[in-house]
Amino acid sequence: MIKLNCDLGEGYGNWQLVDEAEVMPYIDMANVACGFHAGDPLTVQRTVQLARAHTVEVGAHPSYPDLMGFGRRSMACPPEEVTAMVLYQAGALQGLCAAEGTRLSYIKPHGALYHDMMGQETVYRAILEALQRMEPQIPLMLMATPARKRHEEIAGEYAVPLLFEAFADRRYHPDGSLTPRGEAGAVLQDAESVVEQVKNIAEGFVVASDGQRYPLDADTLCVHGDNPHGVAVIREIRGALTEG
Amino acid sequence: MIKLNCDLGEGYGNWQLVDEAEVMPYIDMANVACGFHAGDPLTVQRTVQLARAHTVEVGAHPSYPDLMGFGRRSMACPPEEVTAMVLYQAGALQGLCAAEGTRLSYIKPHGALYHDMMGQETVYRAILEALQRMEPQIPLMLMATPARKRHEEIAGEYAVPLLFEAFADRRYHPDGSLTPRGEAGAVLQDAESVVEQVKNIAEGFVVASDGQRYPLDADTLCVHGDNPHGVAVIREIRGALTEG
Amino acid sequence: MIKLNCDLGEGYGNWQLVDEAEVMPYIDMANVACGFHAGDPLTVQRTVQLARAHTVEVGAHPSYPDLMGFGRRSMACPPEEVTAMVLYQAGALQGLCAAEGTRLSYIKPHGALYHDMMGQETVYRAILEALQRMEPQIPLMLMATPARKRHEEIAGEYAVPLLFEAFADRRYHPDGSLTPRGEAGAVLQDAESVVEQVKNIAEGFVVASDGQRYPLDADTLCVHGDNPHGVAVIREIRGALTEG
Amino acid sequence: MIKLNCDLGEGYGNWQLVDEAEVMPYIDMANVACGFHAGDPLTVQRTVQLARAHTVEVGAHPSYPDLMGFGRRSMACPPEEVTAMVLYQAGALQGLCAAEGTRLSYIKPHGALYHDMMGQETVYRAILEALQRMEPQIPLMLMATPARKRHEEIAGEYAVPLLFEAFADRRYHPDGSLTPRGEAGAVLQDAESVVEQVKNIAEGFVVASDGQRYPLDADTLCVHGDNPHGVAVIREIRGALTEG
Repeated sequence: MIKLNCDLGEGYGNWQLVDEAEVMPYIDMANVACGFHAGDPLTVQRTVQLARAHTVEVGAHPSYPDLMGFGRRSMACPPEEVTAMVLYQAGALQGLCAAEGTRLSYIKPHGALYHDMMGQETVYRAILEALQRMEPQIPLMLMATPARKRHEEIAGEYAVPLLFEAFADRRYHPDGSLTPRGEAGAVLQDAESVVEQVKNIAEGFVVASDGQRYPLDADTLCVHGDNPHGVAVIREIRGALTEG
Repeated sequence: MIKLNCDLGEGYGNWQLVDEAEVMPYIDMANVACGFHAGDPLTVQRTVQLARAHTVEVGAHPSYPDLMGFGRRSMACPPEEVTAMVLYQAGALQGLCAAEGTRLSYIKPHGALYHDMMGQETVYRAILEALQRMEPQIPLMLMATPARKRHEEIAGEYAVPLLFEAFADRRYHPDGSLTPRGEAGAVLQDAESVVEQVKNIAEGFVVASDGQRYPLDADTLCVHGDNPHGVAVIREIRGALTEG
Repeated sequence: MIKLNCDLGEGYGNWQLVDEAEVMPYIDMANVACGFHAGDPLTVQRTVQLARAHTVEVGAHPSYPDLMGFGRRSMACPPEEVTAMVLYQAGALQGLCAAEGTRLSYIKPHGALYHDMMGQETVYRAILEALQRMEPQIPLMLMATPARKRHEEIAGEYAVPLLFEAFADRRYHPDGSLTPRGEAGAVLQDAESVVEQVKNIAEGFVVASDGQRYPLDADTLCVHGDNPHGVAVIREIRGALTEG
Repeated sequence: MIKLNCDLGEGYGNWQLVDEAEVMPYIDMANVACGFHAGDPLTVQRTVQLARAHTVEVGAHPSYPDLMGFGRRSMACPPEEVTAMVLYQAGALQGLCAAEGTRLSYIKPHGALYHDMMGQETVYRAILEALQRMEPQIPLMLMATPARKRHEEIAGEYAVPLLFEAFADRRYHPDGSLTPRGEAGAVLQDAESVVEQVKNIAEGFVVASDGQRYPLDADTLCVHGDNPHGVAVIREIRGALTEG
């Protein structure tokens, strides 16, 4: 069954975004903040404990060093620094996982680092370089796009396995790219449409912006638990997948 | 032979304290900063690479989160947060070690966290709690003091092995405690006295503030490489130990 | 009429604690975070704009440098550093105030810095030292306690005016100190008791833990707007004061 | 006489780049770090005290929030956040200046913020927006380039005065732009050439990369004091200007 992945551990000390215990029972993979955009050690530890209690896989969600901007601002970091910061953050999370008797299952970069990975080959390679040096080998999660083949080829050079994710609430173009935010219909507004798209993706296709079906091959679906509405939608998605 | 341990990796981005390549050939154990008082990922990675090239053991040197104060200010953190921050920092460093094909050998807390560990049992236990959960088991380094027995008993509860360190350049009291800084003769000023004390400690004793010999059992000697004078003294110490 | 002061601007980038527009109409003085425990520049600017729109006085709410701990952990900083960090933070807020055509009215230290100011004369003096050097002169806000006279004497040495605050929701001892948290009855639980105490303090007395009336002379009352319940209570307090 | 400006206050707690007392007697304007790329409050305060003792003008040297990268990495911050962060940092420094009985004379953005200001009109306008709201009005320092007219026009919209700086150690192209680093001859290597160029700029021209003289109108010369060689060169430049 297609897995649901969700960003978690994104509080920092006194600031907490949601009650994670509300989300954890309904997801399969937790992308856990590692301290650079969110996630102080105690917050991260508690998220890992909760993930373990619900047998949810833990993935590292590393970021550019930017608490003030929540890691959403592209930073022009040299590639070797990107490699080092991914290793640092993944290591920190792995340390907290090991202490709870579990371990890191994958890496999904956060925010601007994720976008730069999708758009800049040097950033993508810098991240692959980090994963190549990790042991045991774990996969990198990235977006399923028309560039999938190219992404697979490059990852092959580093012998790093990939996981491709799709978005439950974003309208796709016929070519498999996302309708840009800002364009009409870019984001699916009602829970019903989201659940419909989830069911489609689970069966291997999407209904794109032109109303036609196109194949979409994804390992996992990204869902959002950082607001009460999102949590409600996650529950509906889980319900639909379980029925299906 | 008694091992020399030295704090390293204590730069941060543009700020670097010393040329570590000058120090690394003469020490046995590098206490490497983990990002909370110093040590951005790239600086840490380079220190680990250098340590590996010189077959120097790498230890984690975790701190309270205090870049502005270089981790030298006691912070009233709850014990569970101390445990989580030690696991986070040691994990981050272990991640960078693993990428270089080496691994963490021990943990030595830094600055105020070290002092609080020596002076407050709750802090000591919070740190032991972190080490207990690590795998494989690695030792905690702390100061050889008159409280050694008590330290061993408590560590025994957590099944954490200990390493005791002595100071090459500090005058000891007959009871095995350090002459407090501020008191006359607390710090050995000339390289000759330091080297003399090193030789003594290597043989299992010190000449204390009363001029008499007392046994001192230490696994390792702490030396300082954060200034050019310190680097020169380290070389003399190494020379004396090699002759001896 | 006794003024209501409330901590605001305590978000940081993506993390925001409350909708400040809900609170601002009902208070008189906003203690605005200055970046060290909370308060990125944009958050602070928006709080200042909102305060100005509601003709609420803006006070600086400086802290130890501790985002991870929200400034709630005592840090052993040397006095000259405390002075410098108060000047830095108050200056930053004053810069944002000036840009909005308003200016800083007072300083109220935050969290652990506030507690250390109340308990350690060196910290209190370090803060007064900062205020003494500011121009124009603004007052320091601190807690009305049995040590009030002593606080006034010391502040007199620095020619710094003081504002004394009382707490709407804390039970007082007959001597004017707060019943320590943890003791039964330390915090007034229901809105009715809080409003009753507010009315009493507005008239210059409290009913202490022994059920008797004692004089309490306060310039302002501290209220809490960092949760929805607190916001509701603030409205009730404002209503009671307006009627009174 | 043309003024020498130099970046100072760029230490952070335990990390200090140079002995500023060596540089201060030979410069006219100190661009003082404000805490976002360097400059903890105590470091900044000491730099301000030293500047005042040598009657050196103090300018704010604000940056993107990036201690790890020393403010040298472009960050995609929204314009309103750039405005707020310039106001915050300039305010903080002004607070420390006022406490020493002096005041801010100008603003010169640091590192990547400086480069983005020169290259992106939205960033330039966001910074001008901050200066426009400051009182009293102080000038913005930027690079003298072929775009000078355009820079003056835009600044005119905000009624912000400008100061143009030239570089003592960089080779100019005939059009008044800098020879890009990386190209041969981009940086003047020997002190003699630097001093020669300084004398030329003081008289209103440069000898460009084609060996011809071209007019260059600058208010101030940027010199570098963050290494011992730079300090020596500054002294030579000062000597040459004093003779001239």
